[in-house]
Amino acid sequence: MIINGVAIDDTYAEAFGMKATRILITADTPAWARHAANAAFGFATSVIACGCEAGIERELSPEETPDGRPGLSGLLFAVSTKELAKQLERRVGQCVLTCPSTAVFAGCAGEEQLPLGRNLRYFGDGWQMSKVIAGRRYWRIPVMDGEFLAEESTGLLRSVGGGNFLVLARSRAQALLACEAAVAAIRKVPGAIAPFPGGVVRSGSKVGSKYKALPASTNDAFCPTLRGGVRSELTPEVEAVLEIVIDAVTDADMRVAMKAGMAAVCGLGAEAGIVRLSAGNYGGKLGQFHYRLREILA
Amino acid sequence: MIINGVAIDDTYAEAFGMKATRILITADTPAWARHAANAAFGFATSVIACGCEAGIERELSPEETPDGRPGLSGLLFAVSTKELAKQLERRVGQCVLTCPSTAVFAGCAGEEQLPLGRNLRYFGDGWQMSKVIAGRRYWRIPVMDGEFLAEESTGLLRSVGGGNFLVLARSRAQALLACEAAVAAIRKVPGAIAPFPGGVVRSGSKVGSKYKALPASTNDAFCPTLRGGVRSELTPEVEAVLEIVIDAVTDADMRVAMKAGMAAVCGLGAEAGIVRLSAGNYGGKLGQFHYRLREILA
Amino acid sequence: MIINGVAIDDTYAEAFGMKATRILITADTPAWARHAANAAFGFATSVIACGCEAGIERELSPEETPDGRPGLSGLLFAVSTKELAKQLERRVGQCVLTCPSTAVFAGCAGEEQLPLGRNLRYFGDGWQMSKVIAGRRYWRIPVMDGEFLAEESTGLLRSVGGGNFLVLARSRAQALLACEAAVAAIRKVPGAIAPFPGGVVRSGSKVGSKYKALPASTNDAFCPTLRGGVRSELTPEVEAVLEIVIDAVTDADMRVAMKAGMAAVCGLGAEAGIVRLSAGNYGGKLGQFHYRLREILA
Amino acid sequence: MIINGVAIDDTYAEAFGMKATRILITADTPAWARHAANAAFGFATSVIACGCEAGIERELSPEETPDGRPGLSGLLFAVSTKELAKQLERRVGQCVLTCPSTAVFAGCAGEEQLPLGRNLRYFGDGWQMSKVIAGRRYWRIPVMDGEFLAEESTGLLRSVGGGNFLVLARSRAQALLACEAAVAAIRKVPGAIAPFPGGVVRSGSKVGSKYKALPASTNDAFCPTLRGGVRSELTPEVEAVLEIVIDAVTDADMRVAMKAGMAAVCGLGAEAGIVRLSAGNYGGKLGQFHYRLREILA
Repeated sequence: MIINGVAIDDTYAEAFGMKATRILITADTPAWARHAANAAFGFATSVIACGCEAGIERELSPEETPDGRPGLSGLLFAVSTKELAKQLERRVGQCVLTCPSTAVFAGCAGEEQLPLGRNLRYFGDGWQMSKVIAGRRYWRIPVMDGEFLAEESTGLLRSVGGGNFLVLARSRAQALLACEAAVAAIRKVPGAIAPFPGGVVRSGSKVGSKYKALPASTNDAFCPTLRGGVRSELTPEVEAVLEIVIDAVTDADMRVAMKAGMAAVCGLGAEAGIVRLSAGNYGGKLGQFHYRLREILA
Repeated sequence: MIINGVAIDDTYAEAFGMKATRILITADTPAWARHAANAAFGFATSVIACGCEAGIERELSPEETPDGRPGLSGLLFAVSTKELAKQLERRVGQCVLTCPSTAVFAGCAGEEQLPLGRNLRYFGDGWQMSKVIAGRRYWRIPVMDGEFLAEESTGLLRSVGGGNFLVLARSRAQALLACEAAVAAIRKVPGAIAPFPGGVVRSGSKVGSKYKALPASTNDAFCPTLRGGVRSELTPEVEAVLEIVIDAVTDADMRVAMKAGMAAVCGLGAEAGIVRLSAGNYGGKLGQFHYRLREILA
Repeated sequence: MIINGVAIDDTYAEAFGMKATRILITADTPAWARHAANAAFGFATSVIACGCEAGIERELSPEETPDGRPGLSGLLFAVSTKELAKQLERRVGQCVLTCPSTAVFAGCAGEEQLPLGRNLRYFGDGWQMSKVIAGRRYWRIPVMDGEFLAEESTGLLRSVGGGNFLVLARSRAQALLACEAAVAAIRKVPGAIAPFPGGVVRSGSKVGSKYKALPASTNDAFCPTLRGGVRSELTPEVEAVLEIVIDAVTDADMRVAMKAGMAAVCGLGAEAGIVRLSAGNYGGKLGQFHYRLREILA
Repeated sequence: MIINGVAIDDTYAEAFGMKATRILITADTPAWARHAANAAFGFATSVIACGCEAGIERELSPEETPDGRPGLSGLLFAVSTKELAKQLERRVGQCVLTCPSTAVFAGCAGEEQLPLGRNLRYFGDGWQMSKVIAGRRYWRIPVMDGEFLAEESTGLLRSVGGGNFLVLARSRAQALLACEAAVAAIRKVPGAIAPFPGGVVRSGSKVGSKYKALPASTNDAFCPTLRGGVRSELTPEVEAVLEIVIDAVTDADMRVAMKAGMAAVCGLGAEAGIVRLSAGNYGGKLGQFHYRLREILA
């Protein structure tokens, strides 16, 4: 399969079931909502050492938020409900509760609920008050700029993490620009985030390592500088490979996001130095979701 | 003491000795260096639950960086050398090593050193190579977009965390704008960061709580909505209080940063709704650094 | 009429028929499309001395653009077709043709057409080539980074300019924050822009002046510092007034945009220092469009 | 001359004497100062059809501004004192006077002065007031958010416009990234701006055209798509050329800025796809300033 000169590998991305939630952050201005979100969803590129993967899903106009103020929605993904609850509480407690003028709301329903204001309320030292509106409980916690309003809890979502594709290009500059276009496309898809810095990762890894303590190490088959010494996956014209990792609320969202991202790369095409699209998998035994590139792009 | 109509409380900020380091992140473009830094220094508002406090110190032009590329310097602060080393390794490993085109360098000397590339090098699975230039060791770790260059280690600094001042205003909007001006002033001071979201915190806390498990809780004396029911520090015209917390490399940097921030607030003055400047302390027994507001502004 | 403590004046905004067009700018990355747009739509706050009013309408994902690249749509408004054509050619010629990697496309149909690539093509000095795809003509103009692709022409729209509302607040800080929220809401409305800096104007004007050469001068009735000396429209608690001016593709777009903006201000409400909403008009004799605030908010 | 694999042409940039000025814009927050500056210095890429070339020189902390508020300095360049005065008045009148919370000050001394507040004051319709502080006159013009403070006049500078260099690369993506690095370097140089969108121009031009009405047209010798049909300056491996145009307050500033920009490109080097640096000139007869690339980089 070749699109606009770009070869599409006959392979698949292997993704995993993850626990997730969506929260809404509002503030007096869009800038303050972003300050809170950038802090809360920072250091959240990979569940391996960050505890969760997180990011801004989209900006919300005042008409779209529960309190009629500017805001945004964010998504957090973790490997277990317990870890997700821990990360959610810490990140909202350290980065939203602390941020001037913000409030936080559930961004999704769900039979199972994760505490949002439920535990944070104790910061109010007994002065917190609850109110129930239309069957939903909110906490009003006194702080120095007024009150921090936090909904009692937010829904738990059964989601998909680790969807991905690899962009193989003639130069790093071309890989970077193609990935910027792809990330711009993915950002427009509801229900999906690209959690790595700028949405892109360059340190693809393989399972295992020659060092016992390390469960993963550099994916030598995709490292251009190692082409001479390892069994490489790279043809001579490929000088750089970048990967876009996607977490999505649903399997359908993942397909839409992967398609949008790959289509953006193919749109630039061979003329822009793009050689091939591939994907990362582990032989299909670890993740229950397989996303075949050619099927998604068909 | 009154400056431009703003009353300066006769009090002091109580700050703490902290361990810190400076690192330099470079990339092919300024935007990619910022992507790495925003991820690495995110979720780092308070050592209490984030492990460290961190932020961008300043942007660096290509002429100012070790590899002649655009970059920036960042500062990380933690309560112990061990925790600082752990946070540094994790954050650089998850957010700089992973970020397209970046390299990382020591940003300060020091008799004691913290590992930078020393441990991250193992990601190279044996293909990493070291080179020594002018007495400093660097690691070249093969990744998909070429090589991740990481200096062996970076210096440990004995620094100061928790400098602060409180802005008391007639309205939240006025407090917010004054704090934006203060943060802009502090950002221009080398050796200092304001780690909270947008540089500002609204959830000032006191030591202790009526709930045993909680070591700290809302600073009721500074909460405007509690004025009727507690022993308040707020006069009737104060409707909002915001705090700026500063971490600085040296005691001198802290003084410069606090002065710059407070002067910016006083520059807007009573006309802009600013009533008073105060500061947070714990009676002087916890922190070894005391910053008297009037002395700094004298 | 009072909404969330904010009084809504029983008045109307007087707006004018204007000539307009929409263009689409694409580039290799979203950042380069924005560079072109920020230049092309800069210095375009008021037709009086800028020649046109212009702004970014919204960002477009690669899936939404004619060439599958990241981009954005922009709107330009002028008082006559001739002036609009002149401004369009100059601004695209100086700021899009010159900007690395960009292309420009018609963003609307229309029986009447304005030249887009038609005149710019001559920059190609004879090497330009045209191609017709699906009945639309495009020009390929050789430049140093490849080719500048420009559609032959874009549609002329009969639109509405000068919709507006005034935000009266207890302090400038509160007026500013409310307007930021309003502008965020208006930015989400297709077919509308707020052309002044940051979307807001503080120099409201009245027709006429004591100086013969000046056709307009400061709207003294709304200047808080003149309250003692003129017939003021301001009650004592109002210390600042800001105006949001809106240009819209259709009358319906204007109503949606005005409603979104005013609702955002009312959402913050009296608690955030907002006293009143009013609007600017000239007695109804100059502009053919009248937007009654209470009707729009009903 | 070869630096890091990049060939430096033995040629020079030909630049012109221009009239210029520096102004300082302050506001309640850095964001509002930027809003004003982005509007005032927009549509200012080339004197040919924009009237002036302009841009933000650097951000100023509250400590660096006349009124102790956040701000920035901007530079404007034009071909004559008369045109500069006209552009300055229009742009400040439409984009700074109108922008919430701003003030404007002279940013340079000079025997000759350009009107700043001198003419804008009439907007005050007789209510404007002047005050003289330390020998400098300021105007206080009543507006809806308080008063617009504008210094009477600003200094006229005899400056240099049109310094430039050309980046020849193996691909457009590589040329773009190298230019981003160069622009980041130039932004750190006081007294210099790069007025084109994002600091870069891709539509290099030659004097003259086969169309009589056009004084300039595409620089065919540097267009990669024309290589087969014209007397090309491009070797086969060059697929894209971008130019950085610089305006500077003094000849010395120009040299520093050109050096910073070219050094940044060379820092990325041949490995990043950069082939050659060249420069634009007209045979040396039009512009009185000649900047030899090799001399600057020596």
